[in-house]
This record gives sequence, structure tokens and C-alpha cells, in this order.
Amino acid sequence: MTKLLTQYQENDHLDLFALIKSADVRLTKTGKQYISLVFSDRSGDLPGNLWDAKSDQIQEFVTGKIVKLQGVRGSFKDQPQVQITSLRLAEAGEPDNPAEFMAHAPVKKSDMEEQLNDYLLQISQPTWNRIIRKLFNKFHDDFLNYPAAKKNHHAFSGGLAFHSLSIAHLAESVADQYPQLNRDLLLSGALLHDLGKVIELSGPVATEYTLAGDLIGHISIIDEQLVLAANELNFDLNSEELLILRHVVLSHHGLLEYGSPVRPELMEAEILHQLDNLDASMQMMTGALDKTANGEFSKRIFGLDNRRFYKPSEFDQ
Amino acid sequence: MTKLLTQYQENDHLDLFALIKSADVRLTKTGKQYISLVFSDRSGDLPGNLWDAKSDQIQEFVTGKIVKLQGVRGSFKDQPQVQITSLRLAEAGEPDNPAEFMAHAPVKKSDMEEQLNDYLLQISQPTWNRIIRKLFNKFHDDFLNYPAAKKNHHAFSGGLAFHSLSIAHLAESVADQYPQLNRDLLLSGALLHDLGKVIELSGPVATEYTLAGDLIGHISIIDEQLVLAANELNFDLNSEELLILRHVVLSHHGLLEYGSPVRPELMEAEILHQLDNLDASMQMMTGALDKTANGEFSKRIFGLDNRRFYKPSEFDQ
Amino acid sequence: MTKLLTQYQENDHLDLFALIKSADVRLTKTGKQYISLVFSDRSGDLPGNLWDAKSDQIQEFVTGKIVKLQGVRGSFKDQPQVQITSLRLAEAGEPDNPAEFMAHAPVKKSDMEEQLNDYLLQISQPTWNRIIRKLFNKFHDDFLNYPAAKKNHHAFSGGLAFHSLSIAHLAESVADQYPQLNRDLLLSGALLHDLGKVIELSGPVATEYTLAGDLIGHISIIDEQLVLAANELNFDLNSEELLILRHVVLSHHGLLEYGSPVRPELMEAEILHQLDNLDASMQMMTGALDKTANGEFSKRIFGLDNRRFYKPSEFDQ
Amino acid sequence: MTKLLTQYQENDHLDLFALIKSADVRLTKTGKQYISLVFSDRSGDLPGNLWDAKSDQIQEFVTGKIVKLQGVRGSFKDQPQVQITSLRLAEAGEPDNPAEFMAHAPVKKSDMEEQLNDYLLQISQPTWNRIIRKLFNKFHDDFLNYPAAKKNHHAFSGGLAFHSLSIAHLAESVADQYPQLNRDLLLSGALLHDLGKVIELSGPVATEYTLAGDLIGHISIIDEQLVLAANELNFDLNSEELLILRHVVLSHHGLLEYGSPVRPELMEAEILHQLDNLDASMQMMTGALDKTANGEFSKRIFGLDNRRFYKPSEFDQ
Amino acid sequence: MTKLLTQYQENDHLDLFALIKSADVRLTKTGKQYISLVFSDRSGDLPGNLWDAKSDQIQEFVTGKIVKLQGVRGSFKDQPQVQITSLRLAEAGEPDNPAEFMAHAPVKKSDMEEQLNDYLLQISQPTWNRIIRKLFNKFHDDFLNYPAAKKNHHAFSGGLAFHSLSIAHLAESVADQYPQLNRDLLLSGALLHDLGKVIELSGPVATEYTLAGDLIGHISIIDEQLVLAANELNFDLNSEELLILRHVVLSHHGLLEYGSPVRPELMEAEILHQLDNLDASMQMMTGALDKTANGEFSKRIFGLDNRRFYKPSEFDQ
Amino acid sequence: MTKLLTQYQENDHLDLFALIKSADVRLTKTGKQYISLVFSDRSGDLPGNLWDAKSDQIQEFVTGKIVKLQGVRGSFKDQPQVQITSLRLAEAGEPDNPAEFMAHAPVKKSDMEEQLNDYLLQISQPTWNRIIRKLFNKFHDDFLNYPAAKKNHHAFSGGLAFHSLSIAHLAESVADQYPQLNRDLLLSGALLHDLGKVIELSGPVATEYTLAGDLIGHISIIDEQLVLAANELNFDLNSEELLILRHVVLSHHGLLEYGSPVRPELMEAEILHQLDNLDASMQMMTGALDKTANGEFSKRIFGLDNRRFYKPSEFDQ
Repeated sequence: MTKLLTQYQENDHLDLFALIKSADVRLTKTGKQYISLVFSDRSGDLPGNLWDAKSDQIQEFVTGKIVKLQGVRGSFKDQPQVQITSLRLAEAGEPDNPAEFMAHAPVKKSDMEEQLNDYLLQISQPTWNRIIRKLFNKFHDDFLNYPAAKKNHHAFSGGLAFHSLSIAHLAESVADQYPQLNRDLLLSGALLHDLGKVIELSGPVATEYTLAGDLIGHISIIDEQLVLAANELNFDLNSEELLILRHVVLSHHGLLEYGSPVRPELMEAEILHQLDNLDASMQMMTGALDKTANGEFSKRIFGLDNRRFYKPSEFDQ
Repeated sequence: MTKLLTQYQENDHLDLFALIKSADVRLTKTGKQYISLVFSDRSGDLPGNLWDAKSDQIQEFVTGKIVKLQGVRGSFKDQPQVQITSLRLAEAGEPDNPAEFMAHAPVKKSDMEEQLNDYLLQISQPTWNRIIRKLFNKFHDDFLNYPAAKKNHHAFSGGLAFHSLSIAHLAESVADQYPQLNRDLLLSGALLHDLGKVIELSGPVATEYTLAGDLIGHISIIDEQLVLAANELNFDLNSEELLILRHVVLSHHGLLEYGSPVRPELMEAEILHQLDNLDASMQMMTGALDKTANGEFSKRIFGLDNRRFYKPSEFDQ
Repeated sequence: MTKLLTQYQENDHLDLFALIKSADVRLTKTGKQYISLVFSDRSGDLPGNLWDAKSDQIQEFVTGKIVKLQGVRGSFKDQPQVQITSLRLAEAGEPDNPAEFMAHAPVKKSDMEEQLNDYLLQISQPTWNRIIRKLFNKFHDDFLNYPAAKKNHHAFSGGLAFHSLSIAHLAESVADQYPQLNRDLLLSGALLHDLGKVIELSGPVATEYTLAGDLIGHISIIDEQLVLAANELNFDLNSEELLILRHVVLSHHGLLEYGSPVRPELMEAEILHQLDNLDASMQMMTGALDKTANGEFSKRIFGLDNRRFYKPSEFDQ
Repeated sequence: MTKLLTQYQENDHLDLFALIKSADVRLTKTGKQYISLVFSDRSGDLPGNLWDAKSDQIQEFVTGKIVKLQGVRGSFKDQPQVQITSLRLAEAGEPDNPAEFMAHAPVKKSDMEEQLNDYLLQISQPTWNRIIRKLFNKFHDDFLNYPAAKKNHHAFSGGLAFHSLSIAHLAESVADQYPQLNRDLLLSGALLHDLGKVIELSGPVATEYTLAGDLIGHISIIDEQLVLAANELNFDLNSEELLILRHVVLSHHGLLEYGSPVRPELMEAEILHQLDNLDASMQMMTGALDKTANGEFSKRIFGLDNRRFYKPSEFDQ
Repeated sequence: MTKLLTQYQENDHLDLFALIKSADVRLTKTGKQYISLVFSDRSGDLPGNLWDAKSDQIQEFVTGKIVKLQGVRGSFKDQPQVQITSLRLAEAGEPDNPAEFMAHAPVKKSDMEEQLNDYLLQISQPTWNRIIRKLFNKFHDDFLNYPAAKKNHHAFSGGLAFHSLSIAHLAESVADQYPQLNRDLLLSGALLHDLGKVIELSGPVATEYTLAGDLIGHISIIDEQLVLAANELNFDLNSEELLILRHVVLSHHGLLEYGSPVRPELMEAEILHQLDNLDASMQMMTGALDKTANGEFSKRIFGLDNRRFYKPSEFDQ
Repeated sequence: MTKLLTQYQENDHLDLFALIKSADVRLTKTGKQYISLVFSDRSGDLPGNLWDAKSDQIQEFVTGKIVKLQGVRGSFKDQPQVQITSLRLAEAGEPDNPAEFMAHAPVKKSDMEEQLNDYLLQISQPTWNRIIRKLFNKFHDDFLNYPAAKKNHHAFSGGLAFHSLSIAHLAESVADQYPQLNRDLLLSGALLHDLGKVIELSGPVATEYTLAGDLIGHISIIDEQLVLAANELNFDLNSEELLILRHVVLSHHGLLEYGSPVRPELMEAEILHQLDNLDASMQMMTGALDKTANGEFSKRIFGLDNRRFYKPSEFDQ
């Protein structure tokens, strides 16, 4: 099996197909044109520069093209990059489907869809059930395709559903262990809490913040959608069952400093926040340690207070 | 002119009419009944205990009654209180209108109503104008009667309108001085920013947080009302003009730590936040210094980082 | 079934047996003797004062006695207390076992012992297994009897084992969901992390910090015990398997500010910290909400940033 | 009308006269000489490098020279810069007055002088009036010519007077709205608060911190000048009127963390601090948005907690 | 030798002479007069209430009187107090000198005076020498008599000199160990740094903050005095030798948050700040441990982050 | 006397012998090989690049070689570096002892050894004496040879002993001045507090953190060594004399945030922390000012909150 882009070590020779994820034409300090490229496949990204770029190259090597890439895995300012030795477009008979070169959730979309449907069946509280069904009808495809973030954790296609469903799994275990928790409320929160990201972000690929994302944020956006759905279904916005559902979603960042307008004041809200945190941490640590050799420390992880994590050697276990 | 409740100094003899603002029957440490009373008139509040309360007194001296109060202005743990020497219900021919014994805004309601109407005429941007008119139709009376807070600044009947209109006045001056500001947006923010308090709080008098106030908060509540109004008027929720109006309101607490889900990212949002702060500070400092003698420091003001403020002597000015 | 001490509401008449948990003779401000008592049963504590205490009462009503208590559930400074109307020692034929009047873990000691043994069997990594067995032999009884804290969460007899085993249960679910975690290490951390409390605290009942607890703290104490055990078993203190076991335990408070000398730098260390937090939060919220009526907010919980939690009404679920 | 230096967009061709604001001869990593230049005109600055600099060029292109500059507006590390294609000294008949190529306040110096005199007439409290007149006689020219800062807001010639007078304008509006404020004290603070900058900074152009600026700071410097002036006028330093004037000036940074040795404890001190903040914010936001296209976010503003600000599109207003 | 006021333990009987340090007539909650007294001798203070005070007692027992006090050492809210059983004025032949009943520095004033003179001789830098001599001439007596604080450390007569001279002693040792330090500058800072307290505080006994103390603070006050002295001696305020002397004094609180307008930027300024801290810590710890039994923890010390300190038992040393 | 590496100013020509402290072969952005070198002598380090490196050069110029270096002292991104003009290996008859080219403590090792022995004799408390002797026997050579840190203060050979002994000297002076301090305990803490660094760091030269250093840290490591030594000597780990010795060492970072698992709760612990801080500050300031000209500010010092320190001119002293 061929190695993927991010699996090469320093000084390895690369020879593989990759997708051009972005391509910017720039000038060197001394004024010569080059293309600053980012290559990707399903393992992740690798940047590299094509020096002294000719005008036909500038026209060929644009975002979205699949290319045959040869070079050496070097690094620049401690970040991996490829020193390109040869670059050409993929030809007839070679890979031609960009979707195969993008990172995506490690679970199949159809499996996630099935899990989602299972959970929707489990939520039996009638008001919550109707609102959640309404919203997942409206955003069904985006929920399954969007990433959960622009960078940091779950920043891949399908990441939003993958993250939300992971939390739902955790919620089930925790609700089993602590029966004083309202399972329906916890599951509703797990599914809904980040759904505003389908409006906050621009799309599944090369995602950016939308204007609504920048000025309003995904927490107020999902609250807006809850308000609209409840209004359409003629529910009373001031009923306790609606207020606590909105509260669980509004408070899921846990601290005001992290953008929740209220702190958790329900057991389920506090626990949802903690499980959200746990799954995001697992994803960030796993991602960093996947690129780390045994017996070494990972790179610093911004979302975990810039800590490095150690990957133990293979000792007697 | 007779002195009001909060204008007496330590050891003065009081003799006046007052409203019973609250009355709780309690037991002393050694088990005897007494009534813990809070008296009020339009100058503010003064607590006092009626010791060894008889059962007919417990039935007579309840919240909402006007009473003739005699006693001595003492203090307990550095807080003013009255040592009651005589207490009876007001009789025929004596004051009988509770509204005259409540603190209220220092401007007449009809004047505030007129100012509100003037400002509504000034906002010419058509989308904002229609939304704001819709919301001020819906909440017209509550806006004019509610306090702006449970305690701290503007915690009196009409305080919400008084505070909002003060900010609108400031906004006019600032928009004159800095023409790069969008005056319509600044005025819209001034009027709307705290309007969610008519749902967050329970009413104009003896106000408490509602469940919506506790679990959702006035910032998300006014955003909810903006969403519903825009939806009913068939405006596009993702249009820039709606997003920036919502942003100005959502961000008006300035910092995430203070409960805004987003920080100000528009000039008008930043300035609205600063003017909100300025008017609240003025109200808190003025309230504290009104009760302070010349050449003395006020009590510590919780909302201003527990600072005391100095009231200068009458020097040559 | 009779109501327990903490299940009475304000103004209810109490009539029950209780244990005297503490009894201090004090003087009133004006110099009269009274006994400041704390009563307890398995639901928790309730303080009350016996006024004008006679010298025979002072000799009778001492810590450890079971008494028949009658009175009214009042409150003082917002804390529940009992106004004692009658108090006498329990007589022949009435309850006489103090152990039945103490709060304890909601699981039987024998069940916890069995669970502990199960977990010890599950940890297959040989070095960790031998060290943990050695330490649980040494501290077997104290582990099952000690509380997990002086106050806040799990401050009851058996609380240490109950808390540690709850985390072990959570650890199992999480290790199932994320197979990249080392289950042995996570379970080892769950069992060991708070074991130093058997030296930090003075005993299962009326526990206080020992001098070692004050000056060294339970984190360095359990590290000390790991060092001694490894030394006795002739393990190399600088081997990776020992360093990572110690790291997981040393870092389990998550932040330096909370007393860990190092922050988590292993996946399992980070997750142990989060699960510790989750179980402590659940215990604190559950404890506070048990004393809260439906549709009300709990008292503020010190260990959760002084937040109050809401207990929803019984709506249609 | 010709475009100014900072009005060109990425990839535009520049052809204009500019002042050399600084010129440093440096070596490339591989040891070749180049001149690192900063060009300026009244719109602001633009850096650029002259590669492979000859020795006659090194002698010609020095600070203070006016040059004819041709090149392309590129960028380096996200900062605008010019790729120089041609550079020569201005010749006879071409612009020759450096003052025309420097940024300055958007108001004429003579207008600011007139406003200053007006305000000096308005301050009627005799002690303050005499002290302020004495200090503005002493520092008259420097007040009108100095910038208010080395970078951030009002970092241009005349910025000190422009900023101080803006605050005085705001102070007038606020004193009108809140008559409880002492207008004389507020105006005195507005004029004096930053006057120490004429000793803290080295001069109107290319300003640097002086040793007094670094070791003492402008707040203690203006206090020193107030002390000396009061001493010379034989005023009592411990009189209330002098203490409150000094307090307003000493506390104007609002927080100890920002270098005030005392926090505001007078209404006027608190309001001066807030108005200082408001004017500085307006200046920073306006400066950043002037360089931002409609519908885009500005660059991050260091002095406003690194926030970006959005410049709305031209919608229907 | 008779025990002093603060040397009695809980429940001891007191019988001694003491000074009335303060006497306030108050009402009980139920309206009866009592005198709230604070007694002192050279060991410190002890409060106590005289219940049901008669009017002749109210006239007799006033601040400044020496009394014969009998009673029991009790406590109220964990603070020591005396339950008074007998109280009368001192009579002829009994102690009559209030000064003997006040806490003062543990070194004789004449010794401190001598030490001060020695240090003044040691400072050989001519500018600093002349300024310091001028200021210590002006404030000679107050320097030797004032406390260093209203409460916390060195809050006794002579505390200012005692604290300043302790730092000077430390400064000598440190300057010996690190010859790169400027000994003259360090000694000058040690003597001058708190001298502004003679204006910040009202006097040696029962000291309060003056208006200058509240609004300006002792750091800006000593800077003011340095400016005036330098001006009178015709020194250049912008000379380096004056700027660094002022810097050392202005920065001695170390952090802006603690009221220094600049942080230390000279070695001597940093070290003076650290030595100031060390001596204050020693004084606070010593004061607290003097009242603590062996093998116990002291009360929490506010000025040391509310820490308690442990006083070891007498073990084999 | 020849100038040393760090004593050259910008643009000076260098011609000297130096040690290659590190040598990494890298690629330029455009793919050419160069050697990134760090040169050192006893004055410190200086980096420089050898461009277009030939393969024989790559083999010759490796870590540990002494070279003859010629070049120009330039700078890159404000850091000093050398532009190499000529580089060759030292030849026969030229310097050949690498030890002469490394930074080391400014005191001879034999002197430090003698001081250590003196202090060991001074500690008369028998338990502490035996433990400390045991540990200094075990780590005698490493104590004298290790640095005290990887960077920041005392990061040179012998730095650990130099720092520890400096603190011991300070401790003597302070114990003289405050006889209430336990001199033995303070000296024991001075010698032991950083001894864990001989396990935390990899060795005297080119030191790195070991795995134990990263995962456990030097504070828990020295506690481990104290526990093992006490165990071997059959001392009771829970005796007060051992608990307070461990406490002094465990708490010496002063704040939990700095990695101490407990805060100082003994006078000697607090003072040791302050003296540790004082000596580290002196070392950092001295190091920075040694490279600073008179009348200039030093570079910012990371370990002192990024402050710059001023080196006064040579004025009349």
C-alpha cells in the first residue's frame, strides 16, 4: 500500500498523486514569481513552493486539480513541506476524483445517517422530538457533510456529524451510569449543540466563516433556528421545556469567555459541555499523536493550552 | 418640605409616611417572632425590624400597605436601618397611593414616550425602522414602566426607558462629533439593546428574574424577538442589514465575560457598549454621591469594582 | 417511612432520632452558656442550638450520642437549622448504633470490594499490576472506608472508593469508545489517583487534614507511596512504564493552579482528569438538587464556581 | 487627483513622489547590501527594499529626501510593501517640502490653537485656571505639534492637541447631559491629562521615548509639572482643589494595570478616563477601516484586544 | 512578669491595666445601649463590649483612658474578645502613661535615629546625598514616629523607620554579595521608598488615610517631595541621576497592579522591591506566629494571599 | 587580551578560535545545502551559517570541533550572528581543549566544593544532616557540574552549585537579621531545592530535559530522593521534621502556577522561595546588562516578564 502525504518522514522521497488544495501566485523578496501550493490527500495537507513558475504552469496548477507530485520531504521553520522536483497534471487513466483526496470522517456517511436516525427515534419527549426532527429535516445533508471547525478538531468533511454522534455515544454511557440525568435532554443537546455551524461555516470543503458566523456565531444561530422552529410549530417560547432545551444549547461552551451567553445551570447542560470538551480533546490528541513517533512528544496543540503530548514506546503491555 | 426616608442622618428622629415594600416574619435566634420590614418612598429604601410582633400586627403590616412610621435612624453592620418606636397603618385622609412611594425615573413617563417617538422617526433605514416599530408596538408599555435592573443602576420604575433614552442622547452627540458613525444604527442599538429585559424581569415593581431571564438572559431574548419580528416581516435573516443590527445588540456587553456571545466588531457596536457603560457609571456614581456628605467618600459601589467616590467640599468655584 | 433530617422543609415539625455529630459549649454575646450542636443521620447534617444549657445537659449531649430530637425546621442566615423544643438521650429499645446515622456511599462496601477486585484483575500490564496490588493490600480497608474529601463532593464514609470506582466505570466506557486509549493505564489512574487521601485525611469520620495532608498534600503522598512500592519491588524508577504511571497520578488535577506539579502530557492523563471532574460535578450537582424542589434553583455550589442549578418541574416527558 | 501611498491596492503600479522616512543599509542572508526604506506621504507609510544597492545610491537615498518612486504594491508577510522598479531624487521644479509628506492631524494647527484658547477661557475656577495657563504657556508649541503616541492612535504630528481637544468636545456634551459633573474639572483634565507626553516623547517627528519617558512615564511627569507650577504660584499642595486636579490627571488610565498609580475616585476622573478611551477607540477603528474595502474586515487592531472590525457594504440607508 | 493582653488563651481570666484605644456607643438589635471597646497594650489589641452601659460609664470609658480590666478571654466569630466582668478607670498610683500601652517598634527610637544617621553618611553620591539629607531634615521626627501602614505589617508607632532600616540592613548584605549593584542607590531607595507615608497617613497613633493619601497615594507623594527638593537645590530634573533615583522610588511596588506607575527597570529598583517584600513578609509571618502555639497553624494572613503558616513543635534541633 | 565571541559589536571583524556547539545541515528555501552553526567560547554563543556547504565541510565542521573563525558581526532579526568569511579547523599548536570554550560558573569548582562542605558541617539538626549528607554523597559530582537550567538563568556548567550556594550565602545573612528563622532548615532548603535537576536534565553540557524531567519534574524528583533516603535511613516519613523538610523543598516555587504542589506554609519555605527568586533575578539582569552599553536598555528578559533593564551612564558617583 502506498504511503500517504503526511506519512513521509523528513528527507523521504515522495512520488504520489495529490489534490491541489490551494494555489497562490506570489513574488519572492527579489521579485520572481512562484506558486505557493498546498497539496492534500485523505491523510491531510502538505505545502510546497514551485519556484520560477512559468505562465503555463500558473494556468495549469490551480485549486482542484489532481497532480503527480515528486519531491523531497523537507521542512521550513519546523513545519513539514515538500521540495518539489517534478510536478505534472494527472493524465487519462490516472486518479480523477477530487473527493478521494480530501480528509473525511473515519466513519461512512451512511453509517452516520443511520446512527442519527436511531437517536432521533430515542428522543421521546414530544416537544423536543418534533423540533429536532424539523431541524434535522431542514439541515440533513449539511449536518452529514460539514466539518465541525475551520481548523483544530474535526476540521474535515463529515466532522460535524462525527463529533455530534461521538458525544451522543458518550451521553448514552453517562446517562446509564447516572440515572438522575434526563437522557432525552442530553441526547437532544448532543445532536443540536453545534448544528448552527451549517450556517456559521461556508461549506464542507475549504470552509470559511460566513458573515453570520463572524457577526452572530453558531451559538446564537442555532438558538435562532430553535426559535423559528418552535414558532412555526406553535410552541410556547416561554414554556419550561423549550427554555431548558435552548439553555442546554446556549450554554454548551461552558464559560462565558468561550462565547456562551449563559453558563450551564442544568445538570445536563454541564455534562454536555464536559462531553463536548472530552471528544474534542480526544480528537486533537489523536490527530497530533498520529503524526508522532513512539517515544517522542507531539507538536504543541493550540486548542489544549499549547501542551505537547507524549507517545510511549512499545513497552511490555 | 418634609425629609424623605434616605435623607435622614444617623440618630435623626423619623416621622413620616412610607410604603411597606417587603415584610417577612422571622424568628430571633432565641425563637421569638419579629417582622423584618423594608420601608420605601420615592427617595429609596430603609429596613427596620418590628420586635415581638403580635399576630394582629403580622396581619396588618404586609407588603403594599402605607404606614405612619416613627423611629430613630440607626445602623446595623454599617447599613442604615430604622429603630422603630411607633408604627400604624395610614388612616382616612392620609396618603393612600402606593405609586407615590416608589422610586421612579426622574423624567415623566409622557416625556419619555415623546422622546421615544422622536427617535423612532429619526431612524430612516427602512428595514431597521420597520423592525423597531414592530417591537416597540409590542412592548410599548413595558418599555416605559420596567426598571433596567433588579439592583445596581436604574433599578426603578421607568428605569429601562430612562437608561435607553439617555444613551440615545449621548449617541446623538457622539454621532455629531464623529460623522463616520452610522447614526441610525447607533440609535437603533440604543433603543433596542436592553429591551429583552421586559421578558428577563418579572415586572416594574419588586422585580425578579423570570425563568427565561435565568436560563436564556436578556441578550438572547432580544435576539429572539428580532428574529421573530424579521421573520414575520419576511426579511432575510442573512442579509447584512439584519446581521449588523443583531450584532450591535448581541455584542453590547462588550466582553464575552459579561455575557455577550460575540465581541463588538462594528464601530457602532463598540461605541454603543461604551455609552452603555458611561450612562450606567453616571447613574451608579450619582446614586451613591446623593447619599454622601460634602468632603466625604461614598459607600463602595459594587458595579464599579467596589470603588468609593469622593464628594468634594464646596470650595471656590 | 419516616422522613430523614435533611428532608424536612422550612417550618416543618421534626420528631426523630439523630446522632450528635459535634457539640460545642459557647457563650452568647451577653455571656450565657449554650450548646452549639450538629445533628446527623444518613441523609446529612442539621445544626441547632440548645439555649440556656444546664451543666447536666452539657455532660449528656456530647459527640457520638444518639438523641431523640423534637423541634421546628427554621433557618439562620439562609442556612437550615432546627429550633430545638425537646431533646433527650435515646433510651433502651431505641436506636443505638451510631454507624446507622452517618452518611455513607450509596453502594454497599462488599459490592465496592468486589468491584475493586474485578478491576485489579483487569489490569494486565505486569509492572502496574504488581505495584497496584501492593498498594491496595497496604491500604485496603482505608480505601473502602475513607471519604474522598473533608467537604464538597463525596464527603461521606466510603466516598473514596465510591468516587474511584465511578471513575473506573466511566473509564471503561470511554476506553471502549476510543480504542487508542491504554485501558490499563486509565484504570490504574482511576484506582490510584486519590489513594493518597488515606494519609492526607485523619479517618473515615469527622475527618480533618493531617500534618502530612497540609504540608505535602495527597498528590505528593501517593507519589511517595508509588516510589516506595516500586523501590521495594526493585523496579527501575526511571523506566518509562513507571514514569508514565506516576505522571498520570501526579497530573490528575489537570492544572498547576489546582495543585498538580505537572500538567497532563499523556492522553490517559488528560482523560483521567476530565473523568475525575465529571464524577465530582455529578456528585455535587446531585447532592444540591436532592435538597431542591421541582421548579426551583439549588443553593450555590462552591465547587462549581458558585453556580446554582435548576431542577425542572415534572413536565410531559 | 493623484492617489496617495496607502491608497494603492495589491498589484497596482505606483508612480508618485514620497519622502524617505527612514533608510537602513543591511545585508541579505547571503551577504549583499540593500537599503531597507520606509516611504511616507500624508496618507501614511509604505516600506520597500532597494536590492543590490550601489554606494552612490546609499549616499543619495537617506532619511529626509524627497524621491520619485515607481514600483508595484506587493506584500510581504501580509504587510503592504512596494517592489521598487525605479527610484530617483526629486529634481528642480518638483516637490521639495518634506512637511507636505508627513501625516498630521486632520485639523489645522491654527484652528486647534483657537479651540485651546476658547477652552482656557471657559475654565473659571481660579486655581485651576492659573495653573493650566502657566503650563500651556510653557508647553504651548509642543502641545500643538507633538503626536499623542509613538504608534497606535494619534501617532501623527499635532495628534496630542487633536486628541486632547476631541476629548474636550466630548466633555462638553457629557457635562451638558449630566449637570452633576463639574465642567471645569472635566475640561481641565481633558487638556492636561496627556500633556506629560511633551517630555515623555522626543519630538513631533520620528518620535521615541526619552529616558524620562521610559523611567518615569507621562503620568508622573505631568504630576511633576503640576507640582512645580503650584509651588511657583504659592498654592497649597494639600488643598482639596489641587488634590482633585492632580487626582483626575493621575488616574486617567483608569486601571492600575494601565499605569495609573490611583484608580478614579471622582466622577470627573472616571468620566475623563472613559472619554479618553472612547476617542482613542474611534481613532484606531477609523484608521483601520479607512484602509478596508466595503464588505471586508479590517486588520486586527492591537490596541483593541486584537479585534478586527467589519466595514459594511453600501446597502440601502 | 504579668501577661499582656494578647498572650491570654481562650477561657483565661484577665486582670490587667489597658488603654482604651477606641470606644463606640452602639445599640443592640433590640435597642439597648452598649459600648464597643478596643483595649490595647504594647502586645496588641483586644476588643470587648460593655453591655447595658450607664450614661456615667459612657462618659468615663472613652478613647485614651487607662483602665483596670477584668474578664474572660472568649471569642466571637473566631476572633478573640474579652467578656468584661469588671471595668474601672485607673486610679492614683496606678499606670498613667498612655504611651506605655501602645505597640511600638521593637527597637528604641534613639537607636533607629543613630542607624539613620549612619546610613546618611554612607550615601556618597553627591546629588542623592543632598536630596536625602534635605528630605530627612524636613521629615525627621515623623519618619521616626509614624507607622508603616494602617494595618497589616509594621502598623505600630515607629514602624516606618523600623521597616525602612530593616531593608537598609538587607540592602547592605545583598550589595556585599552582588558587587554589580550600586550600593548608594539601593540604600537611598531603602530610606526614601515609603517616606511619603508621613503625608499619606494622619499620624503615629490611630492613623487614617489623609485626603492626599486617598487621592494621590504615598508613591506619587514622595515623588512630589523629590521634585520639590531637587527644584529647590537647582538640580536638573531630567538628569540621569535624578531620573534613576525617582525611578527606584516610583517602581518599588514592583507591579503596576500594586500601584507603581512604572515597573522596575533598574537592577537596584527590582532588588529594592524584593527586599521590601521580604521584610514585610517576615513581619507579617512573625506577628501571626507570635500568637500561635507550637504544632499549630496561624490564622490566615490577608497580606500573604490568605495563607496560614505552621509553627513547628519543639523537636530535636 | 583578545576579545571574546559575545564582546564584538555590530560590524566588527572577528578573528578568533571557537568551539562548534552545534552544527545542522539544512536546505535553503530554494534547495541548497548550508550548515547552521552555533559557535561558543566562555563568553557565550554566536550563531552563523556556512552557505553552499561542500560535503567535506559537512564532515569537518561538526559539534565539538575547535575552529579558527573569521567574519563580520552582523545580525538577523535583531539577534547577533556572524557572517562567516573564513572557517577552518584548529591545527597543531593551536587550542585543542573544548572545556576552555564553554561557559561555566564564575567560581572555581574546588571553591564551590569547599563551600558545600562548610555548609554540610553547619547543619546540625541530626535527621536533616544525615539525609542531606546521603544525597550529596550520591549526587556529589553532578551537583558541582550540572547547569541550573536549560536556558534562562544559570544555564552554564556548574550553574546548579553556583546558584544553590549563592542562596545559601543569602540565607546566612537573612538568618542573622531575623533570628526567628530556623537557620538549619533554611540552609537545607538552599542546598536541596534544585538538586532534582541532576535527574531532570541530561548532563552538564548541551543539556536537555530527560523523560523523567518532562513527565515528573525536578520538584517531585527531589521529593522522591528524599523519600528514598529517609526510607533507607529508617526515618519515619510522617515525623514532623521530615514533613517540614519535604515541605520546604516541595513549595520552593512559591506559587502552584509555577509547579509547586503546595504553597509555602512555613516561614523558612516562604523565605527560601524569595531568595531563590532574588538570586535568579540577579543572574538574569546581570547576564543581560553585561551585553548592554552604558546609557542603553538591555534586551527584554523573558524570565522577568519581558522587561528591559537600563544600564546607567558613568555619572559622578
